[in-house]
Parts: sequence; structure tokens; C-alpha cells
Amino acid sequence: MTVIALDAMGGDFAPRAPVEAAVWATRSPECSVILVGDREALEPELARHPLAVSRLAIHHTPQTLDMGDPPSALVRRKAEASIRICFELVRAGEAQAVVSAGSSGGTMVAGKLVLGTLAGIDRPAIATLLPRRHDTTVFLDSGANADCKPHYLLQFARMGALYARLVVGNAQPRVGLLSNGGEPGKGNELTRLAHDLLRREEPAFIGNVEPRDVFRGGADVVVCDGFTGNLVLKTAEAAAVQTPRLLRRFVAGSPLGQLGYWLLRGIFRELARRTDPRAIGGSLLLGLNGVGIVCHGAATARAIENAIGLAGRCVELRLVERIAAELARPLMESAGGAAVKAGG
Amino acid sequence: MTVIALDAMGGDFAPRAPVEAAVWATRSPECSVILVGDREALEPELARHPLAVSRLAIHHTPQTLDMGDPPSALVRRKAEASIRICFELVRAGEAQAVVSAGSSGGTMVAGKLVLGTLAGIDRPAIATLLPRRHDTTVFLDSGANADCKPHYLLQFARMGALYARLVVGNAQPRVGLLSNGGEPGKGNELTRLAHDLLRREEPAFIGNVEPRDVFRGGADVVVCDGFTGNLVLKTAEAAAVQTPRLLRRFVAGSPLGQLGYWLLRGIFRELARRTDPRAIGGSLLLGLNGVGIVCHGAATARAIENAIGLAGRCVELRLVERIAAELARPLMESAGGAAVKAGG
Repeated sequence: MTVIALDAMGGDFAPRAPVEAAVWATRSPECSVILVGDREALEPELARHPLAVSRLAIHHTPQTLDMGDPPSALVRRKAEASIRICFELVRAGEAQAVVSAGSSGGTMVAGKLVLGTLAGIDRPAIATLLPRRHDTTVFLDSGANADCKPHYLLQFARMGALYARLVVGNAQPRVGLLSNGGEPGKGNELTRLAHDLLRREEPAFIGNVEPRDVFRGGADVVVCDGFTGNLVLKTAEAAAVQTPRLLRRFVAGSPLGQLGYWLLRGIFRELARRTDPRAIGGSLLLGLNGVGIVCHGAATARAIENAIGLAGRCVELRLVERIAAELARPLMESAGGAAVKAGG
Repeated sequence: MTVIALDAMGGDFAPRAPVEAAVWATRSPECSVILVGDREALEPELARHPLAVSRLAIHHTPQTLDMGDPPSALVRRKAEASIRICFELVRAGEAQAVVSAGSSGGTMVAGKLVLGTLAGIDRPAIATLLPRRHDTTVFLDSGANADCKPHYLLQFARMGALYARLVVGNAQPRVGLLSNGGEPGKGNELTRLAHDLLRREEPAFIGNVEPRDVFRGGADVVVCDGFTGNLVLKTAEAAAVQTPRLLRRFVAGSPLGQLGYWLLRGIFRELARRTDPRAIGGSLLLGLNGVGIVCHGAATARAIENAIGLAGRCVELRLVERIAAELARPLMESAGGAAVKAGG
């Protein structure tokens, strides 16, 4: 059985959405959830689900990292905040993974502070799984590190390829670098330097890719800095929200159009459910020495439930241990050879 | 009458699309177009439009800046390339504006080389007009400068606000800085430094804005570096293309859904026409000492015709002269006062 420490105070709809998610997730006999937060706020929410008590516990802490708090407050002033306590439960062996819909910056800082990063990894990245037609793209960094150095992007590429192999089940993932053009010289200073480094050091690197490739499958793993990655995801989200709105405006003057819109309304809902980042689930903090999943701040209970499922899968697969073992191995021969050649 | 120098060799559908656009645009008695390019390629295209000869001329040049050429080739090896000749025609007073669907990097380099930038402007930016519900957002830089310094973004803000006032007709445009969160501390190093500078120096600055604000109107002018701006636009474009595709897949199993889709097909086409950057028109190279408009590489004839219309409007409004005059004025008192206070 996997035990998940859930930050019950994190997210726009906390504590109701996290509690609901925990109740649903613990219907599976494989899953147990510790709700970390203020007992006084959590008990009335739990009381709404009288049948759901087994495999569900509350770990009380009065503190919460609020939106106005800098993540650094977790070091002292907010050392008892729910998100930090979640990771302390993992360190103590009482839980195997953390899920939070609170600030992703706060979750990353708490995770680094309590569990640290894997050997050879400077910064954990938020790795988002984007569904494609027949497959899934691993997209990172979705927002953990606004400013990146070229070698962070190389680390993201190695970890992302391992994530694609172990979790998505893609035996030979192709790694792309997000840029504003396919040619090697395209992009900004960071992408040009990262391109050279990836070409030398990452055997799975296929070159620069553009935003359309992220959604259509031009690569299986796409790396970029966290500022760019966050803006790309937020733009896709804004466009997904905007399209049905624009359509509704366009059909206003046309009775047949209105009928068409009415016939499609269920499909629009389904499409929104499948593409809206608030509904999809969570993203792994890849590079942390433990399983930490961040959800969208506006995550629904269903999304948090999905995130709990992803956390369970990562634990079962022993993902972190296996990525750590792979990172500890020397680079593959082709890359090693190229590095020696470059050095000599 | 406004004379436009059109790069007839630029873009994926050249020379057919530029020639068609010129034929349509010159139906207006206010507009005259010089097609700049290889006479042998252009004459057969022109022959397809036997009635359109007045106000339409060919300026022959055998050279073209090809996709493989770096823009720097325009200095010597490709000094006779069509895009450079376009700007030479403006410098010689034979045309008042340039329109091109060729490489926007090449257009910018040719423009800087031949006409230079306005006093006080380090780098021209590509300013894109994005239609909103009741208004228009001026979005810059859409891709001219992949690496920016904070003071470039301040210059973009001042020029963008003037563009919004003079062309969009927005008397009091609000200027936002694109970031991944509304709070001042959000973003990367560039946006944090630019935020401080804009707050001190730009009276119309309202703070950070997110991608959804670009499309919904959280600001009238949105500034960012050209790498980020290009990726945001390309992501919105990819999402706009993807949505009807996803819908078609979703309705496949539902006869009523298919009927709904069929009833909406005209509306989808209209929506695509209104949101697809390939169809909208062109973007001004703001900061150049002259009117230069770049189109999407995949611009249709209709889009190039719209770009010619925008070029004509900028010339009629004496936009460049008026922006130059405004930039030469000292900063407004409020900003000047704040700067003095900060200095003292």
C-alpha cells in the first residue's frame, strides 16, 4: 500500500477539493492518504463523507504557506506549514509521496529543503505530461526555474528521457529543445548554448522544436527554461478557454449555428476536461530525491485525485531510485566519445 | 497616393501571393505598389491578372534573400536582394513603406541597414495587433530580438503606447509586462529588472500580465522579449489549429455530434480566418526610421493585402514622424518626478 501525504491546505479550492480527492482516491485498497493541515478546517469537510474513513488520516498542523508568503518562509517562520510537514512525513518514512495544489514554488522549496535533489542535479524541474493523439509528451520545465543555465537543460533532458521511458513507456524517446525555429542557430542565447551542449552530450537529442511539435508529437521530451515553459502552457490554456467563448459569440446571429453549438455542447465539455490543465492532474517535480507532485492552483478534486494516482504510480515504479541509478551511470558511449573528442 | 514597395519574392507562396495581394490592393485609387523581384518570375504571375496594370510596377532585381542565407548577407553578398532594394526605394523617396512576407530577421536587418532606427531606440521590435472583443492589443516584441535588455523593454513600452494611441485610437493605453504571474517579483531576471524600470519610468505601466490578459484585454500594450513573444504567438497559433482537429476526432463516434460539427463548419472557418496569424495581416517593425511591415511566412494573398493596407494607414497617419517627435520630448512629469525622487 502506498501512503500519500496530501497538502490539504493548498490550492484555490482547499480544503474542500483536496479532502474530496482523498476520499475518492482511498476507495482503491492500494492507496492511503494523510491529509496534512488544520484539523479544525479538515474535520467538517471529512464529515461530509461519512462512509470514507478507512485509509484516510489527518496530520494536524496549524500553519499554512499563504499566497503572500515567500517560499523562503518555510525555513523558519513557517517551518510547520502543511507543505513542509508533507515532505517531513516522507523523510520520516510515514509517507512515500507528496501531492500539493499549493504554490509550486513553495512545494519545490519544501522538497529541496527536506529531501534534497538527486546527485548530479542542480535544480528539480516540473515535468508535465501532455497527452497527444497516440502518445504523451514530457514537457519540462513547466515553471520551477525561471532562469536556467545551459547545463540545467541538459539535466532536464536526461531526466525527462528517463521519465518518458519509465512512466510513459516510451522505449526510445526523442528529446527536443523548445525554440522559435528548427534551425540550430534559432533562439536566444540560452537555447543556442543549450543546443550545442545537448548535441554533444545527449544521444537522444533531435534538435530544436517549435510549440506545434509539443502538441503534435515532433518530440517525446521537450525541454526549456521554466519561464518559457510556464508561459507556453498558460498560453495554450488561455487559447483552450477562449475558443468555445469565441464560438458562442460567432453563433449568436445564426440559428443553425446555435443548433450546432447546442449539439456539440457535451463534446466541448469533454474537450475542456481533456485539455484543461486545471483538470488533467499533477506534474512531477523531477530531480527531487523523492516523489513530489504539484497541481494547478485551480485544480479540481478530480485533478487532485489524478495527481494522487500519478504519485502512486511513481512510487510503485520506484521511479526516483531508478532515475538516481541511471544518473549515476556514466554517459552512454556515443556521448562519452563525443565529449572526449571535444576535450581532446 | 501612397506607394508601397512589396518584396515580391518573400514568403512561402511567393511570388504568386504577393502579386495577387498587389493586384487587389491597387484596386483602391489611394494605393500604388512596386513589386520588387525577379522580372522573369513576376511577369507570368502578373499576366494572370490582365485587367490590373495601373498603379502597379515591377522593379527588377535578380537577387533574393533565401531561407539559408543569414540576414548579414544583405550587407555585401546579397546587397541586391529584393528586401534590401525595397528599403532603398523608400530611402530614395520612390516608395513610402515596405511590406514583406520573407524572413522577418532579414526584413529587420535590411530596414536597420538602409533606414536606421529612431533616435533613442536601440532595437526595433515587431509590434503585432491582436484583436480582442471590443478592442485591440498591441503585442511586442513578436520576434525581432531574441535577447533583450531591460531598457529595450522600456523602449518597446513607450513605442507600443504611442502605436496604440495613434493607430488603434486608444487614448489612454495601459502597458503590461508579460510574465508568469501578476506579482512584481514573478518572472525571470529580465522581467524583474524590466518591472522595476517600467514602474519608475513609464507612467502607463500597470504591472505584470499573464498570457490570458493578452487575449482578454488585461492590458492594451503588452511587452516582452522577442523569444518569449514569438513562442507565445506560435503556441496560440498551434492551439487554434489543434482545437477543430481535436473536435473532429471527438465527434467521430457521435452522429448528433457530427451534425453539430457540420452545422458549425462555416463558423469554424470564420474563426480560423479571424484568429490565424497567417491570415490576419502584417506587423509593424516599430522603431525603424520608416514604415516596414512583416507578414507571417505562410501569409496568404489576403493577409499580404491587409498588410499593404496597414502600411498605407501608417503612412497616412505620419506614424513614424509622430512617434519620433514624441520620443524626442522629455518624459512626462509624473515619470520625471518619480525618477528625480528615486535619484534623490
